[in-house]
Parts: sequence; C-alpha cells; structure tokens
Amino acid sequence: MRRALDEAANAARHGEVPVGAVITDQHGLVLAAAGNAVEARRDPTAHAEILALHEAATRLGEKYLQGCTITVTLEPCPLCAAAISLFRIKHLVFGAYDPKSGGVVHGPRVFDHVTCHHKPAVTGGVEESESAALLKGFFRSRRDRGGSAFTLD
Amino acid sequence: MRRALDEAANAARHGEVPVGAVITDQHGLVLAAAGNAVEARRDPTAHAEILALHEAATRLGEKYLQGCTITVTLEPCPLCAAAISLFRIKHLVFGAYDPKSGGVVHGPRVFDHVTCHHKPAVTGGVEESESAALLKGFFRSRRDRGGSAFTLD
Repeated sequence: MRRALDEAANAARHGEVPVGAVITDQHGLVLAAAGNAVEARRDPTAHAEILALHEAATRLGEKYLQGCTITVTLEPCPLCAAAISLFRIKHLVFGAYDPKSGGVVHGPRVFDHVTCHHKPAVTGGVEESESAALLKGFFRSRRDRGGSAFTLD
Repeated sequence: MRRALDEAANAARHGEVPVGAVITDQHGLVLAAAGNAVEARRDPTAHAEILALHEAATRLGEKYLQGCTITVTLEPCPLCAAAISLFRIKHLVFGAYDPKSGGVVHGPRVFDHVTCHHKPAVTGGVEESESAALLKGFFRSRRDRGGSAFTLD
C-alpha cells in the first residue's frame, strides 16, 4: 500500500485525482505500479488500476493475472472492478471506501452477481485514513483554487 | 446495427466471440467501428465497445463522446457499461440480451445506481435475433470442435 500511496501522491502533483495502484505476483514481486492519468491521457478510463493491469499483463506476457494481488488506494469503480475480474486477479486490497463512485462494496457491487465469473478475495479499509486524506487534500486544494466541487464525501 | 453485425461476423471469422460495436455522432456519422479482439490482443478487456470508444475519442480529439450513440450487437458487460458512462455516451443501442454476462439490464445494472454519474438512454433488443444467432452459431461451432462449452444461454 505504501507504493500505491506514493503513486497516488505523484498523480496529485500532476493534477490528477490521487489514486494509485500496484500489482504484485504470488511472491510479492511488484509487476506494475501506476497512478491515475485521466487528465494526462485525456482518457476517462485511464484509471490507476486499468493502467497497472495492462502494464502487469504486458510485463508477464500473459493474458490473465492469476495469482496476483492488486493494491489500490481507493475502492475501485465499476470499470476497474470489472477489469480486475476479467484479468482474474486473485486478491484486491484497497484503502479508502468510495460511497460516491465505488463499485465493489457500493453501487453496483460488481463481484456480487452471478454474471461475475471471477470474484477476487477483497480486503478494504487498509491504511484508509491516509488514502482518504490524500483525496480530501486534493479536492480541498481544487476548491480553494475555484476548481471542481466534487468531493469524496 | 448492420455495421455492428458485420464487425461481429468478422470477429467470429478471426476466432473471437462475435460482438461488434459502432459509434456514431449526433449527425449519424460513423466515428468508429470495432469487433471483439480479446484473442488477437491477448487482452481480456479488448471488447468491441472499449476499442470503439477509444477509437472515436481519438478521432474526435475529445476526452468525452457527448452526443454520440454506441450501437452494440450484445448487451454490454459491466466493464463496457461503465466505460460507456465514463465517456458520457448519449445513447446505447444493443441487440441481444445477455443474462449470463450483461451489466445493463442484468447483473450489476451499472447505470441503475447513484454511483453512476452519467446514464445514457438505453434501447435493447434491436435486431436481437440476428445478434443472438451469430453468437449461438459461434459457440455451437466451437463446441463441435471441442472448444469452450460457454454459451450465451
């Protein structure tokens, strides 16, 4: 989670919503790490998880990431939850809960349906306060500068 | 939908699950068309909709696809439904319903939660029988060759 938080903080320095993701293999080796890059890539789907999943699969030369863990600073949205399932990730660890846009324990709860053909183990709330503080600080700073009024809670 | 069905049929000829997607702008101009390319790209997220959304955004040079329509031969899965929302597509038209893996009117029903911040208009069942026939033919052929036993219904 430390590495994911670093990716999130780095994303914030580049004007991105601070979310970071890290993928490790079954031995704990880091395969990929990414921060949110929606603004840099002008792509609304360039979430940290999506970038890290593709980077890890490319690095391994594999279609699936079976046995791997993804650690994310924020509860994944429905897009990222669905991608985590499609890549057959074994374990999802996330930091802050996201009642506004989350898709794992909020909203559509992507893994909790028979239409979900691969459900990872899920551990939420890991270093939750630090993840949430990064996000709150980012949105507070944007509001102070007259930017988006979107907030985490 | 004709063009989307052609993309689906072409995908099947390349050993892909036959799903096709087309994106048109507010004047009906085709911006992008793609077939499922999961096997060709060895990427479990290379669904027809995802490829078409990125192609259309690149062509327009825009981050969002406001005012655009996506026409897909099959009910989008949760990944694609979430991407359609994130790209702010105005109208989703789809062919066959997908009770096994769909994410719009089945399973997580991605658009039907307060966590979904952009909900497109949805029209399902357009040329449903032709879309479904393509899929059924594909899976029947795969079973006959001893391939996956996955079927649409």
